[in-house]
Amino acid sequence: MHSNIPEVVIDRLPRYARALALLEGRGQQVVSSQELGSELGVTPAQIRKDLSYFGRFGKQGRGYNVRRLAGELKSILGLDREWMMALVGVGNLGRAILSYRGFAPEGFRIVCAFDCDPQTIGASFGDVCVEDVEKLRLTLRDRPVDIGIVAVPAAVAQEVVDALVESGINAILNYAPISPHVPADVRLRDIEPVLALQGMMYYLKEAGGSAKTTS
Amino acid sequence: MHSNIPEVVIDRLPRYARALALLEGRGQQVVSSQELGSELGVTPAQIRKDLSYFGRFGKQGRGYNVRRLAGELKSILGLDREWMMALVGVGNLGRAILSYRGFAPEGFRIVCAFDCDPQTIGASFGDVCVEDVEKLRLTLRDRPVDIGIVAVPAAVAQEVVDALVESGINAILNYAPISPHVPADVRLRDIEPVLALQGMMYYLKEAGGSAKTTS
Repeated sequence: MHSNIPEVVIDRLPRYARALALLEGRGQQVVSSQELGSELGVTPAQIRKDLSYFGRFGKQGRGYNVRRLAGELKSILGLDREWMMALVGVGNLGRAILSYRGFAPEGFRIVCAFDCDPQTIGASFGDVCVEDVEKLRLTLRDRPVDIGIVAVPAAVAQEVVDALVESGINAILNYAPISPHVPADVRLRDIEPVLALQGMMYYLKEAGGSAKTTS
Repeated sequence: MHSNIPEVVIDRLPRYARALALLEGRGQQVVSSQELGSELGVTPAQIRKDLSYFGRFGKQGRGYNVRRLAGELKSILGLDREWMMALVGVGNLGRAILSYRGFAPEGFRIVCAFDCDPQTIGASFGDVCVEDVEKLRLTLRDRPVDIGIVAVPAAVAQEVVDALVESGINAILNYAPISPHVPADVRLRDIEPVLALQGMMYYLKEAGGSAKTTS
């Protein structure tokens, strides 16, 4: 039923769900597409169109029931359950990821971590004890996870992604500054600060730049 | 001239530029939109359409000159110069950002860093000495930067963003797990691992999940 929904629509839904959770936390019971749109910086028409892919949520002129729409979106997105994650790479970035407090409240749990550095293997971060990356396939065979997080240097990222995919992982969050290749049935998202910066510089350049740097 | 170009187009250009730089590094002189598209996972038609916003780059049937197109895209995106950045928040995440080696080769340089922790203020990371966040406005007045990087907890992120905007910064890379509000003329990109994960879970859910977790 949902398979023909454009990926850009799916991409916007988590933001809607997050805004609704905020409204629910503030005790708000009903929200119009106007209000939700202004909260999110998108047009009300966009919100109505995106939601229309999944059925009828609001009554014309009455707005959306905040709690019900939040619940429906969580269910549509598969956010009403817990997802298990494996982290590969426990350098500075990997440690920041391990100590990131934004995952748990949303149901994402890092259950194992791997590194190749003998100094790091065996170290514990909360419940997670870092294992030798050589044991990745073995560990994930015994204890499958849903998601792999790649926080290794670019030079070994493709190799790590391949090992995760061979271990049956179908969703990868990639922090390495390359775009690894994955089979068509595997989802991969790049956390890419450089691409994000580069997309903004077009507008800074048009405005002349604030610091007027020349080099 | 460029102001009517859709943001999604601008967003794709850095990926094109990155793929072209790779091809150039491999010594390739000409590339077809087919080949560039298959490298990037987009259709050749998309590439031709995106590039058409900026003029005529290729000759029908002859492909693109790799070096020339790479150079043109860098110039269009403003990536042919150096951009100065200020980092706010020097915890685990901030340290990972400071030690990230992907910025410098692309012309992005962190020139100052701020924190509120007395243990961290005064510490040096490469060329950068961490200053008291109380001095942010003063320091940025004397030494303006182009970009602010926000790596502070969610609770203080809006306050930090406001201080950066008041200091004349027009581009912000936000790692905090909230979507801060900024004036219309300020660009802000969220580096948001949770939203990225949430956008993928829809597809895992549809496929049944690899680890079959229930909770």
